[in-house]
Amino acid sequence: METKKITGTFLDEITWDIPSQNWSREDWRREFDTMKEAGIDTVIIIRMGLREQAIYPSEVLGIKSGPDLGQLFLDEAERCGMKLFFGTYVNKTSVDFWNEWEEDWEINKRVLPEIMERYGEHPAFRGWYVSSETCIASVGAIEMYTRMSHLMKELAPEKPVLISPYFPSWAYREANKPERHRRFMEDWRTILSSAGKYIDICAFQDGSCTFEMNKSETFELEDYLKEAHELSREFNLTNWTNIESFGRRYHIRFPPIDWRILKRKMEMATPYSEKLITFEFSHFMSPHSMYPSARKLYERYRENILEKKDY
Amino acid sequence: METKKITGTFLDEITWDIPSQNWSREDWRREFDTMKEAGIDTVIIIRMGLREQAIYPSEVLGIKSGPDLGQLFLDEAERCGMKLFFGTYVNKTSVDFWNEWEEDWEINKRVLPEIMERYGEHPAFRGWYVSSETCIASVGAIEMYTRMSHLMKELAPEKPVLISPYFPSWAYREANKPERHRRFMEDWRTILSSAGKYIDICAFQDGSCTFEMNKSETFELEDYLKEAHELSREFNLTNWTNIESFGRRYHIRFPPIDWRILKRKMEMATPYSEKLITFEFSHFMSPHSMYPSARKLYERYRENILEKKDY
Amino acid sequence: METKKITGTFLDEITWDIPSQNWSREDWRREFDTMKEAGIDTVIIIRMGLREQAIYPSEVLGIKSGPDLGQLFLDEAERCGMKLFFGTYVNKTSVDFWNEWEEDWEINKRVLPEIMERYGEHPAFRGWYVSSETCIASVGAIEMYTRMSHLMKELAPEKPVLISPYFPSWAYREANKPERHRRFMEDWRTILSSAGKYIDICAFQDGSCTFEMNKSETFELEDYLKEAHELSREFNLTNWTNIESFGRRYHIRFPPIDWRILKRKMEMATPYSEKLITFEFSHFMSPHSMYPSARKLYERYRENILEKKDY
Repeated sequence: METKKITGTFLDEITWDIPSQNWSREDWRREFDTMKEAGIDTVIIIRMGLREQAIYPSEVLGIKSGPDLGQLFLDEAERCGMKLFFGTYVNKTSVDFWNEWEEDWEINKRVLPEIMERYGEHPAFRGWYVSSETCIASVGAIEMYTRMSHLMKELAPEKPVLISPYFPSWAYREANKPERHRRFMEDWRTILSSAGKYIDICAFQDGSCTFEMNKSETFELEDYLKEAHELSREFNLTNWTNIESFGRRYHIRFPPIDWRILKRKMEMATPYSEKLITFEFSHFMSPHSMYPSARKLYERYRENILEKKDY
Repeated sequence: METKKITGTFLDEITWDIPSQNWSREDWRREFDTMKEAGIDTVIIIRMGLREQAIYPSEVLGIKSGPDLGQLFLDEAERCGMKLFFGTYVNKTSVDFWNEWEEDWEINKRVLPEIMERYGEHPAFRGWYVSSETCIASVGAIEMYTRMSHLMKELAPEKPVLISPYFPSWAYREANKPERHRRFMEDWRTILSSAGKYIDICAFQDGSCTFEMNKSETFELEDYLKEAHELSREFNLTNWTNIESFGRRYHIRFPPIDWRILKRKMEMATPYSEKLITFEFSHFMSPHSMYPSARKLYERYRENILEKKDY
Repeated sequence: METKKITGTFLDEITWDIPSQNWSREDWRREFDTMKEAGIDTVIIIRMGLREQAIYPSEVLGIKSGPDLGQLFLDEAERCGMKLFFGTYVNKTSVDFWNEWEEDWEINKRVLPEIMERYGEHPAFRGWYVSSETCIASVGAIEMYTRMSHLMKELAPEKPVLISPYFPSWAYREANKPERHRRFMEDWRTILSSAGKYIDICAFQDGSCTFEMNKSETFELEDYLKEAHELSREFNLTNWTNIESFGRRYHIRFPPIDWRILKRKMEMATPYSEKLITFEFSHFMSPHSMYPSARKLYERYRENILEKKDY
């Protein structure tokens, strides 16, 4: 089956629940070469900062020292002909049941202008990414998505705004299957009715859905991809898919995914999605990853997807 | 102390809770060479399929594409002079407290003939493995073990049937030590009274027992090995031991085991067991494993067990 | 900012919740060379034994075979000009809410003389380490610290006694911030009033504190370092800090730490601590670690701390 390639990836350098790879500038330069070779044309900084860490010495966050990886990533993206989307500050990664979103908003109100001032003119800085993840129409989700994307458009009207929400398998757990679909659509119509006018691209994460055989009670990946596509069309957004390249079923959270599952997810997303991106290349698909099986995943990806050989 | 070598291993290619290694055909060929070098003469496909995945494009499961690893494993086993036991389909891996065993049974009723049709004549296909794991005499355990092994004998009377049950440390938790022993023997007499006549080889897993110092309240490995041996004799089964080559005591589930523990377990099982097999060579003991410490475990295993050098 | 280097490390060879690396004697020799190159002058055997395992064939523990790593570590320490602190036996690692400390004590009463008899005259055997970890003034903590350190002084008055307690983030959870500080100081005044006269060096673990931005309700690392320093002065102990080189925030427990966090923790501890030690070099910071990202952490550590290059 014909499948789109993965042409975008997050850069998870200030990590949340994924261990740091402790790469040098040289390691990152080599990685950009590899990403280019793999056909990546878009990189997304998953977050500029998390609590006491940031990818550049941020006055707003009171971080005085440390490397400027914002500059490095932009320069490397430019060198390799890639577009870069810049992520925001988060204290927690999800805003779903979290009442402290206002603190994050107050910090981001000062962080976003700082990003613009430092990097606004860089030719590779081509979009924004709203780093607060969400899945349901909580007050925090609606407010953060709306305020953040609105501020992004104020600061740089020409830069598209990207979001990458997830499917709330836990939030709809007690509901039956049609009810889950109804609530999913309703939640996202509520969120996008408020925030959608400032958002340009929506890349739903594919990993919390299932495509298992005994499907009676699950929310199937294909339906989810269809409905995500429908929502994007309804609110005039470009529809991408965030194909997760890590496995979710294992005690070890998270290892590189089984390539056969990756391939099937890519095939399923292809008809519904304008572009496949992944979370994320460097930990889970890169030959330079700290996970040795990522090297094997990259070999399989190259053979199967890039060189179209049979397994 | 003299110890038997490990001469059999599971092939965990459709993994359940262990991450995929994403190996190519070439990687598997190299692995068979290494297994042969290590003295492996028996390989056991742990399961032919799990939910949406299978090791060959299975019409019964509706899987249309993907590699035929059943053929690859059989051909490699033949090339390397090994016997292969073929595992079955599972939706969940355990049938102990699970009422949906009938679904698995219905699928396996069609999967087993498919396996026979595809590979029945292959010279390396030398036995069956019942992939549903169990530990207590639940209805699911009795029915699945009996029906599956019966069907296997109907399809291929000459192929021995292997099972590899585990010790239910959790199921007998509230009981005292003699009571645990009594219930363990009683559960297995119940299961084997029904299924034993179709089963040829029983390889209890050694990992959920303990051989710790403060033993007053535990079920000790040596007693367990003895009782497993006794059960096998009672029901006229060949008694193997499944020596787990992964560690269970760690936050990371599961890393390669400490070789000193592996060695002591092998020594303890040697007098009670006709053959030592392991779960499993390729993730936990192979120099090609995704876990770098597996390479070191293999070095220690070679030096100590194969070359009989002192540590 | 100027920072002390890490000049001591634990040797976690009989591991508790960290997987074994399955190293040979040659692997350990190479590791000592690397530790020396990294500036390590002090190694601490985290425990001589745990349940059924010990670093030497211990008559007391009934362990008849296996390598003598006590000898190996002492010889290597001598060769590399390092001081070695010898740890004790544990059945569980923590004695905080555990009533079975007396069993450990009874075993250690015989293990400590055994260590003295085997290695007492070795020129590299330069101190004791009390392996039972603790954080609050439980009966077990007070008794074990007091009895063990007292016995150590009886057996070898010239060998300093080291402890490495942790911060009980869970024990004071329900208390407010000033209350937490009050209880922390009170617990340790209670413990050290009893055991302090036999203890020479206290190296609080730095990892269960936080140095996050939203600090209102947390116990901050800097305050903790200050108070540990104050306690050590009050009881006339040498104050070291145990800078953990593993990350605690991740699903994978535990990976090598983000080097930027390591660096900030080292900077913060420098003014309060006479010596920085770490748990531990070989799994988390060594180029030979089973964790590929440890190699990268070592590269960053070398460049930044040893060679004082900018990132």
